[in-house]
Amino acid sequence: MTGLHWVREAGILNTPIGITSTTEVGAVRDYILRHGMDTGKVQTWRLPVVGETFDGMLNDTSTSHITYEHVKTAIETADENVEQGSAGGGTGMMCHQFKGGTGTSSRRVSVAAGEYTVGALVQANYGRRPDLRMAGVLVGDLFPHVPLPGAMVDGSVIIIVATDAPLLPIQCQRLAKRATVGLARVGGSGHNSSGDIFLAFSTANDVAGDDVAVSSCRSLGNNSLSALFDAVADAVEEAIINAILAGKTMTGKNGFTVHGFPTEELVPILAKNAQVKWVAQ
Amino acid sequence: MTGLHWVREAGILNTPIGITSTTEVGAVRDYILRHGMDTGKVQTWRLPVVGETFDGMLNDTSTSHITYEHVKTAIETADENVEQGSAGGGTGMMCHQFKGGTGTSSRRVSVAAGEYTVGALVQANYGRRPDLRMAGVLVGDLFPHVPLPGAMVDGSVIIIVATDAPLLPIQCQRLAKRATVGLARVGGSGHNSSGDIFLAFSTANDVAGDDVAVSSCRSLGNNSLSALFDAVADAVEEAIINAILAGKTMTGKNGFTVHGFPTEELVPILAKNAQVKWVAQ
Amino acid sequence: MTGLHWVREAGILNTPIGITSTTEVGAVRDYILRHGMDTGKVQTWRLPVVGETFDGMLNDTSTSHITYEHVKTAIETADENVEQGSAGGGTGMMCHQFKGGTGTSSRRVSVAAGEYTVGALVQANYGRRPDLRMAGVLVGDLFPHVPLPGAMVDGSVIIIVATDAPLLPIQCQRLAKRATVGLARVGGSGHNSSGDIFLAFSTANDVAGDDVAVSSCRSLGNNSLSALFDAVADAVEEAIINAILAGKTMTGKNGFTVHGFPTEELVPILAKNAQVKWVAQ
Amino acid sequence: MTGLHWVREAGILNTPIGITSTTEVGAVRDYILRHGMDTGKVQTWRLPVVGETFDGMLNDTSTSHITYEHVKTAIETADENVEQGSAGGGTGMMCHQFKGGTGTSSRRVSVAAGEYTVGALVQANYGRRPDLRMAGVLVGDLFPHVPLPGAMVDGSVIIIVATDAPLLPIQCQRLAKRATVGLARVGGSGHNSSGDIFLAFSTANDVAGDDVAVSSCRSLGNNSLSALFDAVADAVEEAIINAILAGKTMTGKNGFTVHGFPTEELVPILAKNAQVKWVAQ
Repeated sequence: MTGLHWVREAGILNTPIGITSTTEVGAVRDYILRHGMDTGKVQTWRLPVVGETFDGMLNDTSTSHITYEHVKTAIETADENVEQGSAGGGTGMMCHQFKGGTGTSSRRVSVAAGEYTVGALVQANYGRRPDLRMAGVLVGDLFPHVPLPGAMVDGSVIIIVATDAPLLPIQCQRLAKRATVGLARVGGSGHNSSGDIFLAFSTANDVAGDDVAVSSCRSLGNNSLSALFDAVADAVEEAIINAILAGKTMTGKNGFTVHGFPTEELVPILAKNAQVKWVAQ
Repeated sequence: MTGLHWVREAGILNTPIGITSTTEVGAVRDYILRHGMDTGKVQTWRLPVVGETFDGMLNDTSTSHITYEHVKTAIETADENVEQGSAGGGTGMMCHQFKGGTGTSSRRVSVAAGEYTVGALVQANYGRRPDLRMAGVLVGDLFPHVPLPGAMVDGSVIIIVATDAPLLPIQCQRLAKRATVGLARVGGSGHNSSGDIFLAFSTANDVAGDDVAVSSCRSLGNNSLSALFDAVADAVEEAIINAILAGKTMTGKNGFTVHGFPTEELVPILAKNAQVKWVAQ
Repeated sequence: MTGLHWVREAGILNTPIGITSTTEVGAVRDYILRHGMDTGKVQTWRLPVVGETFDGMLNDTSTSHITYEHVKTAIETADENVEQGSAGGGTGMMCHQFKGGTGTSSRRVSVAAGEYTVGALVQANYGRRPDLRMAGVLVGDLFPHVPLPGAMVDGSVIIIVATDAPLLPIQCQRLAKRATVGLARVGGSGHNSSGDIFLAFSTANDVAGDDVAVSSCRSLGNNSLSALFDAVADAVEEAIINAILAGKTMTGKNGFTVHGFPTEELVPILAKNAQVKWVAQ
Repeated sequence: MTGLHWVREAGILNTPIGITSTTEVGAVRDYILRHGMDTGKVQTWRLPVVGETFDGMLNDTSTSHITYEHVKTAIETADENVEQGSAGGGTGMMCHQFKGGTGTSSRRVSVAAGEYTVGALVQANYGRRPDLRMAGVLVGDLFPHVPLPGAMVDGSVIIIVATDAPLLPIQCQRLAKRATVGLARVGGSGHNSSGDIFLAFSTANDVAGDDVAVSSCRSLGNNSLSALFDAVADAVEEAIINAILAGKTMTGKNGFTVHGFPTEELVPILAKNAQVKWVAQ
C-alpha cells in the first residue's frame, strides 16, 4: 500500500482509500490526490493510501485502463452499498482457485461504553483449493467438477477494517493485526508472493487536524478491545467468504477462465457439517 | 520476551531460550546468562531471550521459586524429548478454560532444495471455551460436565518455531508471523492482555560470530517458503492442541482448580466430524 | 515510499528506485513498472519503490508533468554521474530555507574482508536556517543578506544508501537507520510533516531470484558494520551539504523564489572554524 | 529493554522504569514487579521496563550485586534530583573512552496549547574519542594527556524522554525516535554491539486503566510536535554531555581505570569555538 508510512507516523487517514490492480496503483494514487486537490478536500502534500493485488491472469495489464473519471466516480458515488464479487478492484481476482473479488461484512459489538459496529472490506486474491474452509468445513476439494483455472499465481489479500468505536491510533493497529485471524479461518496462510497488508481505522474521533493546539481523543478501555478483536476476526472471515460466494465464472485475457464457486451446492453441505455458529444466522 | 530486540537487530540467537511465568522472567534471564558465563558458552554482554505467560491463579506468585539450579538443570538436560502439558513453564497454564501448558509438534517439508523439519513449541495460556476448535470442530462447549475454572484471566501464548531449513533472518521473521495462522485455527484471537510474541529460528547456518570477516549464509528461494509457512501453521495448531490434550486437572494456590480436557471423549466426536486431514494421520 | 513493504518482507529490490515530487509518485511508479514490463526486466507483479518530497511552492502541481518518456530516459541513461542540485526530483526542493535538491556522496571503507564503498543519494527538502550546520559550524544565520523564501513548508528528505559490501537484508536495515546520524549533523530533526524514510541496499549478492532452490548470501561479520555505519553517517552528511551547495537561486510558480546558498562565502568561514575533518580532504 | 513490547502494544507504562547493568537486568525487573505487588501499586501480570548497558570492564559481573533493598530504595527515594555521573546504573559506564554514566537535561517548550517541559535521562556507555563533539567542536582528541582506558568494548546508550505535554502513544513514539538526533550531535552513530533503545512517555493524561469503559486523551496537534522534537534533540545532547562532564576517574575490577573528562580544560576551548547556542545559556 502507498501512503501507509504516514498513517503509521501520524495516526490520521487524510484521504479516501483506493484498492486496485498492481499495474494501476500509481494512477489511482495520483487521481485520488488530484481529485482531493480539485475539490479542496485534500491538501496537496497528502499521501493517498492505495492497495493492490495482482490481476494479470484475467486483466490485460499491457496498458493502463484506469482514468481520472473512474476514480472521480468511485469517490463521489461511494456509499454503504458495496458491490461484492467482481466489482472495481475485485474484478480480476482469484481466491482459493475460484473466482474471488471484493467482499464485505460487519458485526455489532456491545462493550461497556456502548454498542459499536466493526466492518471489514477485502479484496481477496490468494490461496489454493485444498486450504479453503467455510464454517470450519474443508470445502475446497468437494467440487472437483468445477475446473481449476489454467494457471496459478500465489496472490495476496487486502483487508480494510473500519469501526465507529472510539479508538486511539495504537488501538487501530491492534485491530488490524487481528484480521489475520479471520483470514486464517478461511484457509489463508500468507504464501510467498503475498504482500498482505491490513489497515484499520476508526471514525469516532473528529480529528481537528495538524494545526489545532490541542485536541481530545476518546478511546475505549483496553479490556473492551477483546470483543472488537473477535468482531474483526468474524467480519474478515465472512467478508472473504462473501467475496468467493459472489464470484461468477469469468473469462478474461487470452481466454483465461476462472470458475465461480458453486454456492448452491454449499448449502446442504454446511447444513450438515457447519461448525461455526454465525453461518446459521 | 526479553532480549528480542537484539535478535531482531543482529539476526543471531546467542543464548538458550527460556519460557517461564511472569513473575520469574528476571530470575530465569539472569540465570541463563550466568550459566552461559560459568560454562564459557555465552559472552557476558549477551541478552538472553526469555518469554513469559501469567500463572498467578494456580501458582503462588507472592515469592520467587526458581533457583539457579533449576535453570542449570533445564539447560543441561534439554533434549528432543519435550515433556508436554503441565511441565516447566507450562505448569500453571490455562488454555480455553481447560488445563493448558507446554505443547510441541513438527512437520516434514519437501521443497526444491531438499526435505526439512519445522517444529513448534508453545506455552499455551489463553482463550475461552466457546472459541476452541480442533480439526475444524467447535469442541469447547461440548463438555459442560467439565467445570469451568472459578476465575478467568485473559492470558497469552508463547510460540517458538525452529527449523533446519537454511533461512535468512528476514525469512525467519516471516515464518514467525505465520504462527498466528495455527493459533487462529485453534480459536485464538489475541485478546487484550495477551502479549503474544512469536520467534522463529533456523539451525542451518553455523553463524561464525560477530568477529568473522565475512561469512556465507545459505537460504531457500522465497518461493519455497510457502511450504514452510503451511508447516508452521500446522505445527503450531497441533502443538496447542497437544498442550491441551496433555493437561491433567490441577489444583493450585488457595484450592483454585483447572480441569483437564476430556481427551477420551474427543475421539468419537472427531471420528465423525473432523475436517482437517492431519488429524487422521 | 511505495513498494517498501515488499522490500522489507522479501529483502530483495526488484526494480529501479524513483524519486520525484509528491504529486507525481503514482505516475513514476506505474511508468517504472511499465518500462520494466516493456523491456522484460521486471515481472508484472513487482512493486516499484518510489519516494517523494513536496515541491508545491516552486512547482505547479495543479497538473501532472511527468510522462512515460521522462521515466524511460531516466532509467536508460542512469549512470554513476549523478547531477546534483536542481535536477530531476530535486528540482523544486528547499533545504534549510536555501535552494535544496539532489545530493550524493560516498566513502571508501576498509574492514577485515576488504575495502568497500558506501554511497548516499539524498533529495533534501527540509529544515530551517538556524539549524543548519556544516562541518560543525552553525552557518544558517551567517548570511542574512540572502533573502528567506516567502513561505515555509516543513518538508522531508529521502535518503538512499548503496554499498558493494556483502550484507544480509537485516544488515542493510541497520545501515539505513544510521542515515539519521548524518542528517542530524547537518541540522535535521525530522519536523512534523516530514515523512522521512531511508532505504539501504547492497549490490554484492547476485540474488538468484524467488525460484531458486537454495542460494548463498555473503555477509560481513557484525563487528565490521561499525565502520560502515560511520561511512553512512559521513556520506549522508556530505550528500545533504552537496545538495545545498549545488543549489542555484530559482524562481518558480507565481514568482516564488528560493535563493541558493552563498557557497563562495562559506570557504573562509570553514577555513577558520571547521571542526569536522573530512571537510579538509 | 524488557517489557517494551507491551508498552508498544498498549501505549501505557504501568511500572517504574529501571536502568542497570547487563548482568542485573533480571534481578531489577523481578524486584520492581515484586515491589509493585508488595505495595499494591502494580498488578501481578505487569511487565516492568528495564534497560541495560554493559559495565563488565569496571564491574565484577561474576556474581550479582543488586538486592531487593536496592530496588526498593531506588523507587521509594526517587525524586526530581537525579544524581549524574557515576551513580546507580551509570556507575560502571564509559562514554567516548572517558568516564560515562547517568546524565539528565530538560527544555521548556512553548507551543500553541501552552508551555511544556521535555526531559531526557541517559545512561551513556558508548563511543570513541575521535567522534566526541560538544557544542559542535570535536573535543575528543584535544586531551591526549588523559590516558585511554586499557580496553574498549563498543557499548550502547539508554535514553528515556519524558514530557508533561499531552501526547498520544503514537506521538510519544515519534519523540523517542528524535533522541537519535541528540545522540548524533555528540558523536554517537550506533556501533555494532549497541542495542540502543529509546523510550518516550507523557505524564499528561491520567490513563484510567484497562477496565474503564471509555476515556479521553488530550493530545497536541501534530504541527506542535516540531518544537518538541527540537527539545528532545537538545535535551538528549545535553544529557549525554552532562553524563561525561560529571564523570570522575574510576578504578574498578582488576585495576581497570577509566579517566574522567577534563571538564576544567573544556571551558576556554568552547569559549573560543562553541557553535551551538545553548552552551552559552
